[in-house]
Amino acid sequence: MRGILLALTGVGALAGAVAATAPVSGQSDGAAAPIYGIKYLQGYRDWHLISVKRLTGKQLTGSGAELRQLRAQLGNDLAIKACRDGTLPFPDGAMIAALHWNEDSSDADDDALAAGFPAAGLHSTFAGSSVHVQFMVKDSKKYAASGVWGFADFTNGKPGDEALHAKCFPCHAPAKDNDYVFTHYAPTP
Amino acid sequence: MRGILLALTGVGALAGAVAATAPVSGQSDGAAAPIYGIKYLQGYRDWHLISVKRLTGKQLTGSGAELRQLRAQLGNDLAIKACRDGTLPFPDGAMIAALHWNEDSSDADDDALAAGFPAAGLHSTFAGSSVHVQFMVKDSKKYAASGVWGFADFTNGKPGDEALHAKCFPCHAPAKDNDYVFTHYAPTP
Repeated sequence: MRGILLALTGVGALAGAVAATAPVSGQSDGAAAPIYGIKYLQGYRDWHLISVKRLTGKQLTGSGAELRQLRAQLGNDLAIKACRDGTLPFPDGAMIAALHWNEDSSDADDDALAAGFPAAGLHSTFAGSSVHVQFMVKDSKKYAASGVWGFADFTNGKPGDEALHAKCFPCHAPAKDNDYVFTHYAPTP
Repeated sequence: MRGILLALTGVGALAGAVAATAPVSGQSDGAAAPIYGIKYLQGYRDWHLISVKRLTGKQLTGSGAELRQLRAQLGNDLAIKACRDGTLPFPDGAMIAALHWNEDSSDADDDALAAGFPAAGLHSTFAGSSVHVQFMVKDSKKYAASGVWGFADFTNGKPGDEALHAKCFPCHAPAKDNDYVFTHYAPTP
């Protein structure tokens, strides 16, 4: 399996090579994401905060519509400990969830800011409707061919297609020096 | 004390009226924030995610410099349960931390996005250096005059001044219908 996955990764077409052995802890009973065989991870909202991000540009679907997202990255205990200790690579069992929302705003919030800080011209935005959640799962036996990470993308609890998942590892390759994780642990104010 | 606080709140000058009785759980040994007597809350980074926000405008100091912040709101167990159950007001003991960072970006992140999604013109930003953390602490005995919330603002572990803290409750007054909390629980993707 490892050789097959390596070869397929090289041509950016991992579709169909499902690495399904023992289930990852906390997985639901629903459909597994293609390629990596990861199911929706129950309870990830109780993981701890790694950092927050924002993404702007055009929608990835080719519609050309504007994309504005606020994002949060949460880690399970193993991932958070590695972040705080500054140890890389992440250990087996580390899991990261990236929660993506459409960026939204309200006149009421901005009016309250204008009343409190009239000269500052403040504008506030917040996490609106859900877009999707993406998981990274560290498993050196199952995912040796993809940086020892499995990847999964769920929208409304349903996994994305194989073409989408084939992009995960190649896209994360530039972050190799941070063990393929783009997000760095945000400082604690 | 309640009458004094109410009167002072009315003129926006709560300075000096410290409501110091039993310490709030998890407080550090450092200096307490003015007015509400709340010390820096150890361990709040282990609380759970309520939502994320972004704030733009001009710096509040009057320098006129650009302000761009990414923010996260975390809640302790009592606050998170109330959020998830949709019950208001928050119960005594509920605590919320608002973590504010300067918004930062990196060419490396954007280059990786351009390689993965060349037509989307994506730009990513992330939580950079810390600005400060703000706490809301629910205590119906100590903070009856300010919506039953105590407020505190810490920069590098040190509390802000009285003038700053005098603005907390008046600024939060427009959010009275959500128990003085602007942030709503973000959906779980």
